Amino acid sequence: MNCEILCVGTELLLGSTVNTNAAELSDLLAGLGVNVFWHTVVGDNPGRLAEAVAIARKRADLIVTTGGLGPTYDDLTKNVLAHAFGREMEYHPEEADFLKRWFAKNTAVPFTENNLQQAYLPERCTVFHNDWGTAPGCAFEQDGVRVIMLPGPPNECIPMFRHCAVPYIKSLSGDVILSHQIRVFGKGESAVEDQLRARMEHMENPSLATYAKVGEMLLRVTAKAHTEAEAEKMCAPVVEMVQRELGSAVYGVDVDSLEALCLTLLKEKGLTFATAESLTGGLIGERFTALPGASAVYRGGAVTYCNDVKAAMLGVEPAILEEKGAVSYETAAAMARGARVAAGADLALSATGLAGPDGDGVHPVGTVFVGLADAERVWVRQLKLGTRRARVRQLAANHAFDMLRRYLQGLPIEQI
Amino acid sequence: MNCEILCVGTELLLGSTVNTNAAELSDLLAGLGVNVFWHTVVGDNPGRLAEAVAIARKRADLIVTTGGLGPTYDDLTKNVLAHAFGREMEYHPEEADFLKRWFAKNTAVPFTENNLQQAYLPERCTVFHNDWGTAPGCAFEQDGVRVIMLPGPPNECIPMFRHCAVPYIKSLSGDVILSHQIRVFGKGESAVEDQLRARMEHMENPSLATYAKVGEMLLRVTAKAHTEAEAEKMCAPVVEMVQRELGSAVYGVDVDSLEALCLTLLKEKGLTFATAESLTGGLIGERFTALPGASAVYRGGAVTYCNDVKAAMLGVEPAILEEKGAVSYETAAAMARGARVAAGADLALSATGLAGPDGDGVHPVGTVFVGLADAERVWVRQLKLGTRRARVRQLAANHAFDMLRRYLQGLPIEQI
Repeated sequence: MNCEILCVGTELLLGSTVNTNAAELSDLLAGLGVNVFWHTVVGDNPGRLAEAVAIARKRADLIVTTGGLGPTYDDLTKNVLAHAFGREMEYHPEEADFLKRWFAKNTAVPFTENNLQQAYLPERCTVFHNDWGTAPGCAFEQDGVRVIMLPGPPNECIPMFRHCAVPYIKSLSGDVILSHQIRVFGKGESAVEDQLRARMEHMENPSLATYAKVGEMLLRVTAKAHTEAEAEKMCAPVVEMVQRELGSAVYGVDVDSLEALCLTLLKEKGLTFATAESLTGGLIGERFTALPGASAVYRGGAVTYCNDVKAAMLGVEPAILEEKGAVSYETAAAMARGARVAAGADLALSATGLAGPDGDGVHPVGTVFVGLADAERVWVRQLKLGTRRARVRQLAANHAFDMLRRYLQGLPIEQI
Repeated sequence: MNCEILCVGTELLLGSTVNTNAAELSDLLAGLGVNVFWHTVVGDNPGRLAEAVAIARKRADLIVTTGGLGPTYDDLTKNVLAHAFGREMEYHPEEADFLKRWFAKNTAVPFTENNLQQAYLPERCTVFHNDWGTAPGCAFEQDGVRVIMLPGPPNECIPMFRHCAVPYIKSLSGDVILSHQIRVFGKGESAVEDQLRARMEHMENPSLATYAKVGEMLLRVTAKAHTEAEAEKMCAPVVEMVQRELGSAVYGVDVDSLEALCLTLLKEKGLTFATAESLTGGLIGERFTALPGASAVYRGGAVTYCNDVKAAMLGVEPAILEEKGAVSYETAAAMARGARVAAGADLALSATGLAGPDGDGVHPVGTVFVGLADAERVWVRQLKLGTRRARVRQLAANHAFDMLRRYLQGLPIEQI
């Protein structure tokens, strides 16, 4: 089944609202074996909406709309779709009663007649009652095209899709799409493409695709079959092939990020860690603590943006800073050791370097030293991460987490 | 000028990537007086992309594409667009040289030939050199339709639009479109709209529009005139009116963010600051040090994710932590005082609270205390920031920077 998601709302075209519905619905539809081939966004404009529907029904056999089901004059989706597919609007008294009850219960404002507009739906449709708001959604089939209409607010759109649209679609489609994400750090997208192209080009089902992320990349293996077990069986050898080809550059399958993997591994091993950040200014701690449950293994650390704070908070000897400089193997090592002790952790990560735009007259911008310390040893990676401040900082954090996951996975730590 | 944003990338249709480019570009185009009437997303599929281009060129006179400019075999945008508009591809040796230099400088991986694909662009186009990545963008006009092609990664797409596409678009219209951004913190969008609606409704040129951002909002004043001076004259009274109406909730005009304003003000006054972060885990330091030149005023601080680190690194008395708890007015105050001393700074910011999903059994999730200390005094804001972890953390950081900018602007600090 080929699907177009048609989102209606001027707020999306003004950029004041990011279209998260399209992404989340696409993800959910993929899991149902539906091919989403198009996203279209139009404003609350009947003419342009009608044109968009005319285009969509020609190329898609499932049209999922979001938005424009509400009570105000610019909520046009139902009427435009009904007219496009030659259907009258039908009044649903049970929805009208629900709306009146909802208003009495949830608002101080009096019930106004325009709210009854929400009780009208295209005739002969499957009604999706809205347990998360007021405007009902619906689904119908006409001339071989399926139409599903959902409300715009994500906290209504997504639950209604899960609870009403998913059962509706499952009753239509036989196939299951299943995919696995293989996460890679330390190899560029084009290098991986070169390595795997011969194999990738001829793959249809299962398919293998590469995606560049900031400072890392992922490969997605996707299989379509009649059952989940079958699709699983088709994916497995491809996942194994990629892991064999790319070796320890593959840091995980179906994990969210380097830091998420570190959190899992630290919990498994019952280890804690701390951070000592110079050029990253808190980014390593921030990225890790963005993960729910981080407090189980992360104790904290120091952001030492100037030398005397490195000495004061981490006990980095002024001699090291004077002789070797703040951007040095020795300082990165001392910062990691110091953070471990100061925060009373099993392990510590450190990062010092030049994010730019200004250099220190000694090293080029992008020179970074990333350190990892445990009770016995310290490891340091020396890196050249380019000249773009934001990228240098993100990559430095990636390298810190990569050293940590390699430590926890029992792999060589210093080299990439 | 009527515009369609055409985003190319299977990752968008699989839902693995949210289409933030479309929203941000729409926002920026609105500021240029361009009407964005359509967003379209297609995958890395030449046939469907060609069809989408055929539709777009019929209804829009500006087509802005994102994605598909990279080195891999599924990067098809340039070739499909060039073919659609009857143009050959042209090799740009200077871009090829740049690519080779970039690889030598920024990556450990060897330069592979497929990267040279990025040096080919449709003939007779305006080249947008990519200072933020590798793949260049471009712009051309054919049969009354303007085409602008941008890379997919937001950290390349958006800067290239600002620095290359904006001047290109400005050069197309005889009129000057000038806009000012008024940044507001501590007032919701609907409250601001209620306050300004009567005035906003009748404004055409200059126009006044509101945009909700994460934890803050901005108003854009836009004027269209024959000269920049004229447009300036039209905007000025509107900017003044908004500042008068919203008072100290307006933190700046044409400033990038709360932290960018803080950096400017700290430099002006020759003051330094430090941070003590619990629930934000480094976010305050990270956001500030993302700004070039941060080292002039930011000394560093501590990330104290557990209690004994609060005591060890910031000298927070265990008595306070036992009696009042880590999430308390007193702890926030002690953290700020401690960070000021430990980092030897003039001022310090602190944040402690519950980002969720787990509570502490005492306070509800979203309870946050944000502190600011100078040599004499300490101020603390108690906040209820909802239940969404990422949002709670961002808002806590916003409040910290808001307290700092209010201190530096000589405004009341604790209340919002």
